[in-house]
Parts: sequence; C-alpha cells; structure tokens
Amino acid sequence: MDPFLAIDWGTTNRRIYLIEGGQVLHTERDGRGVASGPDFPAEVEAIRTRFGHHKILLAGMIGSTIGWKQAPYVPCPAGLEALADGALDLGDGVYILPGVSRLDDARADVMRGEEVQLIGAVAAGLAPPDALLIQPGTHCKWAAMSDGAIARFTTAMTGELFALLRDNSILAPNLHDPVEPGKAFLTGVAKGLERDLSAELFGIRSAAVLGRSDESGRSSFASGLLIGAEVAGRLAEYPAETAYILADNLLGGLYAQAIEHAGCKAVTIDSHAAFVDGIVRLEKLLP
Amino acid sequence: MDPFLAIDWGTTNRRIYLIEGGQVLHTERDGRGVASGPDFPAEVEAIRTRFGHHKILLAGMIGSTIGWKQAPYVPCPAGLEALADGALDLGDGVYILPGVSRLDDARADVMRGEEVQLIGAVAAGLAPPDALLIQPGTHCKWAAMSDGAIARFTTAMTGELFALLRDNSILAPNLHDPVEPGKAFLTGVAKGLERDLSAELFGIRSAAVLGRSDESGRSSFASGLLIGAEVAGRLAEYPAETAYILADNLLGGLYAQAIEHAGCKAVTIDSHAAFVDGIVRLEKLLP
Repeated sequence: MDPFLAIDWGTTNRRIYLIEGGQVLHTERDGRGVASGPDFPAEVEAIRTRFGHHKILLAGMIGSTIGWKQAPYVPCPAGLEALADGALDLGDGVYILPGVSRLDDARADVMRGEEVQLIGAVAAGLAPPDALLIQPGTHCKWAAMSDGAIARFTTAMTGELFALLRDNSILAPNLHDPVEPGKAFLTGVAKGLERDLSAELFGIRSAAVLGRSDESGRSSFASGLLIGAEVAGRLAEYPAETAYILADNLLGGLYAQAIEHAGCKAVTIDSHAAFVDGIVRLEKLLP
Repeated sequence: MDPFLAIDWGTTNRRIYLIEGGQVLHTERDGRGVASGPDFPAEVEAIRTRFGHHKILLAGMIGSTIGWKQAPYVPCPAGLEALADGALDLGDGVYILPGVSRLDDARADVMRGEEVQLIGAVAAGLAPPDALLIQPGTHCKWAAMSDGAIARFTTAMTGELFALLRDNSILAPNLHDPVEPGKAFLTGVAKGLERDLSAELFGIRSAAVLGRSDESGRSSFASGLLIGAEVAGRLAEYPAETAYILADNLLGGLYAQAIEHAGCKAVTIDSHAAFVDGIVRLEKLLP
C-alpha cells in the first residue's frame, strides 16, 4: 500500500500525518491554520516536497468559505461513503473532505473536521456503531451515531462562552485560576444542570464581593456551571446510558465528571487513533 | 422645605438632581462615572457651587470599593429605614447610601444604585407593596418586594452576555443589526424558555452558514434567546401574576414581550419617577 498524507487543517492550527499501511510514520503540528492566510497550493507543494508526492487528504476549515476551496457540507445521516462521495477532487491526488450539516425541524448545525474522528471512532471499534459521541472544545460536538454514521449532532459553544467570560466580562478578575476537576467543579455542574446560567454566573461575582467563595475554586465552579448546563441540554436531546468522549485528558476528564454526575456513564477514547482510523478508511475510497 | 441634591453616581455615568418640595427643579447626566476616576470631594464642591450648598445624597457605585468611600451593603429584607440607617455620613450634609446584599442558602447577590428605584416605585404607588419588580440592563435585577421593602433579589447578567457575544464571539458577524421586538425576538424567546443556551446560540451561526435564517432577524433572535432563558429562570424563582418593569422604552418593551410570552402580565413603570420618589423619602430620614 502506498503511503499518503493527511492534513487536519483547522482555523488556528494544522496537523500533518504521513501514513502507510494504516500506521502513522510521522506527524507534526503547527500554527499555520486557515486564518493565518497561507498560500494553499504552495503549502501543499512544500509538504509533498518534504514527505513525497503522495495522495493528500485535507480535512477541516480548509474546505470552508475561509479556506482554500469550498467542499459543500454533506447532510447527515453521513457515513464514510457519503464523506468520500462529497470530497472535492482538486486533481493530482489532492482531495478536500466535506463537512457535515444537520438541517431538520429541530435544528440547523454544521461541523467541519470533527466528522473524520467521529466515524473513525466507530470504525476503529473504540465506540459501538450506535452511540453518543462527544468532542469537547471551543465548540463542543455531540453526535448520535447510528450504524457507524453520523445520524444527528449538536454543537454547544460552551468553551467559547467560558473564554468570553474569562477574558472580557465583569467576572474576568474571578476566573484567572486554572480549571480543575473536583469539588468546586462538581458544585458548578450540579447548579449548571438546573440551566439558570445568567443568574448563576453573576452569582460568582456576588459571592466574591461578599466573601462567600474560595478564590481558587471560582474558575472551576464557572466551568462546571457552563458544562453542567450543556450536559443537561444534550442528554435531554440524546438520551444514552454511555457517552464516549474524544478529548485530551483535562477537558475529557471534566466532561466525564459532569456526565457521570448527570447519571450517564462516561468513557474516554483516543481521539488521535479515531482520526487516523477514519482517514485511512477514507483514503481507500478515493481514487 | 429646603432643596437638596441627589446624585445617582454609577460606574460609567452619573445623573445629578436638584430637588425641592418633591419636584425635580433641574437634572443632568454626564459621563463622569466612578470608573473615570474623579476627584470626589472636588466634584461635590463644584456641584454645590453651581446649585447651592444643599444636603447631598449619593447613590450607586460611589459607595463601592471602586468609589469614594465604602458604604457597606445592607442585607435584605431592606426598606427605606434600613437604607437610611446604612447611609454613610461624611459630615457637612453629605451622605453615601448603601447597597443591598442578599446572602441566603439559595444565593449570594448584590445591588448598588437600583435599591432607591425599587423602594421608590412602591412608595410612589407605581407598583403594589408586594410585587415582582424588574430592572433590565447590563445586569438585570429581579426583586421580590414585600410590604414595600426589598425581600429578595436576583441579578442576571443577560445584557452583558449579549454584548460579549455581539462584540467578541464567533457570532459577532451575525449580530450587527439592531434588536427589535417582534417575530424574530419572540421566536428566540420561545426557544430561550427551554434554557438550552450554548447550543441554541451556536445554532445562530449554523443557520446563517446554511442560509436558513434572515440576516435582519438574527440579533433579535439572539436577544430573545437570552432574555427568554432569563425570564424562565426568574419566573421559576419569583412566581407572579404581574411583573413591573422599570426601564426605558426599548429594553422595557423587549422584557414586557418576553414576560407576557411566558404567561405573566407585564406593566412598564417610570423608573425616573421611581428614583425621585425614593430619594425624596430617603432625604427626609437623613438629618
């Protein structure tokens, strides 16, 4: 089997993979995301010069309106074949993978880049074919997988809300400590499950002014509030006994704690392995 | 009756009143709020030079840690007498009024400046002695009045959340149109009452990307979402048949529409008259 290249090319960062026989021979990450305004043809040429003139699969925001060329969203339900069929063939073995859209009576939603991980997680056997998968982050994705395909999904902008509050709001002076799992976080989760955000958030400031809270726990409490409210909303939309979380250790651990607190079992799975498995299967479907 | 001066001295702005016999002889507003770092004794002296060496009542953030001198919070329940008793006497007829705090098992909360309006609204007969009063704004106050005193209250940072989203978030490009009462706002309110903010907010972007929403309605929808979620939370905490809203026309109208949509009657009352009535009664209690 010939080697190929895959690039998870997001807004801020990109990660390059050289893959052969299902194994990652080399991977590297840099800050040359779509928003940095790279010269895409020149970048792809440079990557091939370094790693060989292989087939190259591009995923993520590179296929959006702010990317290189637009690969239109594939509507869900979307599985491996739908993603491969929706790939934009730029010639010379260069493909941009599409994002996935949801457009039904209940909700409009979009993803771009997460779909490879989601489908790969099931394909690799890390999660069952019918499962609830979660990708925490700035814009957290909750996806209901059905028969290995993305049946429905919902994005919650919880991570961005936290960053806005920490960086720009009246709560900023109270949110400089690191967020940690534990008691303060879980107290926030418990309050967050009641979904009364705008009052509970102001309560962080009031409790600080009145000397009613420990300074060191305020960030964790705030994070717990936001994640708790998200978990309540999403478990109502996607009832499940088990949730599979694709994330790094810290964020994955926080979501796992919040989800378990809400009475659902949480299993953390390897997001890197999921991406690689998904992209390897997609490569086989592209000529 | 001698004339007196009252200053509602907030973080950003201040409003000066010259009052005699319960009537406002003169009022003016400027941007010399507490955060602009004024020389307080010199400012007070200058105001007395212009309007006469009258008794002077200072309300709002001027009594906070970032103000002139700290007038500690009076715990609720708090009525006229408690506010007068808590006033900080600086001598020479200058008084700083205290804020009000709430500190019970359910919540910690603080206000500073709003209390005069709240108590004045009831004292002036604009709202009954036992009533739910609402002061929309950056930090919206919901107060349960009992026998004319502030029994309990809750602050929701809804206005600030909207500003953060409009100015700093991924939704910024979608939220530049003015917020208006009407269909888009009420659609947002209906969704907001379900209190699923972080997902519904991202849905504004998704609907825009997928061409599913009218550009002109997105700001109003977002405002409706946030206000709807606030109204749901607060009417659960303060069940009422009628809510009395102290606000300017636009914001008051939005809250009235949202509250009526939630099944509660909304009555808008004159916040300026309420402040004047409250401060006139406080002046009589101060030597």
